[in-house]
Amino acid sequence: MEQTYRLIISCPDRVGIVASVGQFVSSHGGWIVEANHYADSESGWFFMRHCIKANSLPLSLEQFKKEFESIAEEFQMDWAITDSDTPKQVVLLASKESHCLVDLLYRWHSGEMKYDIPCVISNHDDLRSLVEWHGIPFFHVPVDKNNKAEHFHRVSQLIAEHRADTIVLARYMQILPGDVCEEYEGRIINIHHSFLPSFAGAKPYHQAAQRGVKLIGATCHYVTQELDAGPIIDQDVMRISHKDSVEDMVRLGKDVEKMVLSRGVRLHLEDRVLRHGNKTIVF
Amino acid sequence: MEQTYRLIISCPDRVGIVASVGQFVSSHGGWIVEANHYADSESGWFFMRHCIKANSLPLSLEQFKKEFESIAEEFQMDWAITDSDTPKQVVLLASKESHCLVDLLYRWHSGEMKYDIPCVISNHDDLRSLVEWHGIPFFHVPVDKNNKAEHFHRVSQLIAEHRADTIVLARYMQILPGDVCEEYEGRIINIHHSFLPSFAGAKPYHQAAQRGVKLIGATCHYVTQELDAGPIIDQDVMRISHKDSVEDMVRLGKDVEKMVLSRGVRLHLEDRVLRHGNKTIVF
Amino acid sequence: MEQTYRLIISCPDRVGIVASVGQFVSSHGGWIVEANHYADSESGWFFMRHCIKANSLPLSLEQFKKEFESIAEEFQMDWAITDSDTPKQVVLLASKESHCLVDLLYRWHSGEMKYDIPCVISNHDDLRSLVEWHGIPFFHVPVDKNNKAEHFHRVSQLIAEHRADTIVLARYMQILPGDVCEEYEGRIINIHHSFLPSFAGAKPYHQAAQRGVKLIGATCHYVTQELDAGPIIDQDVMRISHKDSVEDMVRLGKDVEKMVLSRGVRLHLEDRVLRHGNKTIVF
Amino acid sequence: MEQTYRLIISCPDRVGIVASVGQFVSSHGGWIVEANHYADSESGWFFMRHCIKANSLPLSLEQFKKEFESIAEEFQMDWAITDSDTPKQVVLLASKESHCLVDLLYRWHSGEMKYDIPCVISNHDDLRSLVEWHGIPFFHVPVDKNNKAEHFHRVSQLIAEHRADTIVLARYMQILPGDVCEEYEGRIINIHHSFLPSFAGAKPYHQAAQRGVKLIGATCHYVTQELDAGPIIDQDVMRISHKDSVEDMVRLGKDVEKMVLSRGVRLHLEDRVLRHGNKTIVF
Repeated sequence: MEQTYRLIISCPDRVGIVASVGQFVSSHGGWIVEANHYADSESGWFFMRHCIKANSLPLSLEQFKKEFESIAEEFQMDWAITDSDTPKQVVLLASKESHCLVDLLYRWHSGEMKYDIPCVISNHDDLRSLVEWHGIPFFHVPVDKNNKAEHFHRVSQLIAEHRADTIVLARYMQILPGDVCEEYEGRIINIHHSFLPSFAGAKPYHQAAQRGVKLIGATCHYVTQELDAGPIIDQDVMRISHKDSVEDMVRLGKDVEKMVLSRGVRLHLEDRVLRHGNKTIVF
Repeated sequence: MEQTYRLIISCPDRVGIVASVGQFVSSHGGWIVEANHYADSESGWFFMRHCIKANSLPLSLEQFKKEFESIAEEFQMDWAITDSDTPKQVVLLASKESHCLVDLLYRWHSGEMKYDIPCVISNHDDLRSLVEWHGIPFFHVPVDKNNKAEHFHRVSQLIAEHRADTIVLARYMQILPGDVCEEYEGRIINIHHSFLPSFAGAKPYHQAAQRGVKLIGATCHYVTQELDAGPIIDQDVMRISHKDSVEDMVRLGKDVEKMVLSRGVRLHLEDRVLRHGNKTIVF
Repeated sequence: MEQTYRLIISCPDRVGIVASVGQFVSSHGGWIVEANHYADSESGWFFMRHCIKANSLPLSLEQFKKEFESIAEEFQMDWAITDSDTPKQVVLLASKESHCLVDLLYRWHSGEMKYDIPCVISNHDDLRSLVEWHGIPFFHVPVDKNNKAEHFHRVSQLIAEHRADTIVLARYMQILPGDVCEEYEGRIINIHHSFLPSFAGAKPYHQAAQRGVKLIGATCHYVTQELDAGPIIDQDVMRISHKDSVEDMVRLGKDVEKMVLSRGVRLHLEDRVLRHGNKTIVF
Repeated sequence: MEQTYRLIISCPDRVGIVASVGQFVSSHGGWIVEANHYADSESGWFFMRHCIKANSLPLSLEQFKKEFESIAEEFQMDWAITDSDTPKQVVLLASKESHCLVDLLYRWHSGEMKYDIPCVISNHDDLRSLVEWHGIPFFHVPVDKNNKAEHFHRVSQLIAEHRADTIVLARYMQILPGDVCEEYEGRIINIHHSFLPSFAGAKPYHQAAQRGVKLIGATCHYVTQELDAGPIIDQDVMRISHKDSVEDMVRLGKDVEKMVLSRGVRLHLEDRVLRHGNKTIVF
């Protein structure tokens, strides 16, 4: 993939945004290879993502940022520009269940998804050999009801030490403390094993079996302080029938969970997810 | 379609059920063209549906029922036998929204689904011309907050007069009184415009937009006294995006609603839905 | 829906297109409510669709066209601008099968899709009453192997007399002559009852049953002189099993066919489909 | 999972099959936990699969086979009985592409699917480390246009030495010789990266891009001597758009391929796939 700069903008909607940004980019010779716009008529907010060929611009990222500042101010933009060649630093948190972790490791190892994994942290030691085969540091940080504060302190420390910019909860099964949620707002991705808002909380497949639903699902969302209530990035479902026991749902659901999580992470890695209140714009 | 008898059985699971029923049918020369079994290991209950070629049996339905009684008693069966050539009598209840009603009328008119529609009842007069074009009696029974009892009394009367065995709420938007729910238990089919249990109650698409879900859905279920909580027959979903407003969801959702409702009604008409507590076995 | 102008552009890709168009629109005060871009790196071609609030522009469509001409020339654009308030004139061609026709009539009648239907033409008289109930002229133009030329002459005449800009083959089952295909290139929409390129030509469900596929599908495409080979607008599939006979496939397939056709027609009506060689860009 | 015997039967359809088999099983106290029947009215053939609790039967498998023989003869059955506790011996053949192999290894390693993998054979050495991490023997058997006979001789030898009863081509990309296809008829499973019969043969994603389809797919089928034409076990599709290049399709398609392959292999391992001519009955 050719190197691009990704210019991500949210601002109040008004006439002239597209023209000003387009004018700015083209005045520097910038070649736009992908562009997405969305005007939310309800809130009066405008969202934009441009991919610009890096080698078409005579500017460094730093220069671009400096020169773009006046447009950003004029339109009161919340904005960022990222470099497709700078991989995100993604710390993976897991528990005992391996399917989501293995899937993310595989997509990294095969080069299908481009990101760095500075380390994997788990409250169980079961997945150590697998992670270490990939050449990735593995930290076992046990947790029980008496050492929660200590556990999360150590986890936070490891995340900070490894300079993570993104945290993925690959079926981590622990509720992160509020201060971590706040510090990494919009950068912690969770997979919940139900079609939210149905069956939030514990044992969603048991809840689904109880209700007799005909589809099970999974939801990938940003973590906020309210459990299973953060902005949804992606969801999907799978058909089941009366023949499927809770155990069957758990097994079948794994395929939906890992598919939805990897899609959500990929969208985040490519800066395609813009948050707006409790919703997402996904370009 | 060739005429068949449909033998529907629920009973406690034990050895010998399949053999006894199979033996009974074959001893009369009965040709089984479709057979479905399900043993629910959790509840220890067994479910069965057989389709037998009518012309392979020298027995009338009445004789079959009489002769089968001893097996039914032995295995403590909850059972029924129906004739594929006897169409169900389905009264349709609607409001102003036409998509579900039109879809069911079309599938009846084109012969795609075999059933009788003794009448359509609506609390608005808007759909009269459409219904009457099909040669079906249309009854306008207005309702407002002051005449609910009267409205439901008249509706119940019409249903009884038209000897309905099944009632379909094709976006009827009124909550049926408890006594009607009880009298027609397992024979009133509703379509709810969300993927239940998410967004039960009023304005589900508004709730969905509020939560920022990435799929919308519809649920076809039997009506019980608890709102939107009866046994689910079928469900389906459709992908949406941030670009879809509530109005878009309402429009897109219509296609899911009518698809799911018609599938659920078809399954019911063919006696493929067995209720077990608050769940369904769908053969 | 608020009135918008839709500006549709295809041109060789180069730096400055987005900026120039954006500049032009905003210099006239134009408020862009939806924008889509696509750069096809393989062919070096660029595609763009803008929706501009009509009441934000002080220009008439004619003035817009005149003023935009110099930009269009500079970038060698193949372009058009349409008015969302000017409904397309869509002549529907059908045969005996009613499901696609009924679906399109319903979506028109209920206001779900905005277009005019100057007339329906069919080689059978079966659907006359249905069409006329909607207040739409119905023309029965019989065809057999001896009068094909005459049939198509009359059909062409009717299409021209009714000033159609779009022709929809709603399971018309006849192969249009080459000169009609050419005259209405990119404006004749067909639904084929298979997942093309599988099972082109006659009796696709029989072909599908023969091959033992596990999904059946439908394809909505623009008609070209080569049978079932024109640019694809949309496709979808439905799961089947060994239990489904050819008759079941025909029945089940109807739901996919009408869904895919209505989606394709809707995309066309909103000027969202840009053709490029034998492919489509669908915004 | 509780141990069961799986009784698989195909025979000409007639009255009394279900009764005789049911009678036989219940006379020995056999508890049927799952039963499936299908009567193909077109060919007049009948198909049946029963799962019987092993511990409900006082017979060994050998005794069951001996005693059942008279019924089998009476109804001219093509039949088999297998033990859910006897894992199939599955040799995996791969090339360079790892996604399908890794997926099958993972499902084996995590215990999600029960089977033995006596060895993996590949014409490239790339995947050795991965396979050996799982503790499974890996054989690198190179192939080029000059040593095809030698290659296949060695591959056949390895398959025989490892007493495989099933061969899975996990994107092996070589065409097996006719004698191998014949020897392992109904036991060689391939994944083809298109929705067959579209795009059989080489480079299906390039063919798909060329045709401009809106869905890509994958097909899991039994291998026969005719390329990509054997009985289909399962298929699935994924939505794409004009934005997806051939490289995107290759990447996206991997998820469909591994999902469809693992589903097909699972169905085969559980003896749920009955072949009938070039079609499958999947219970």
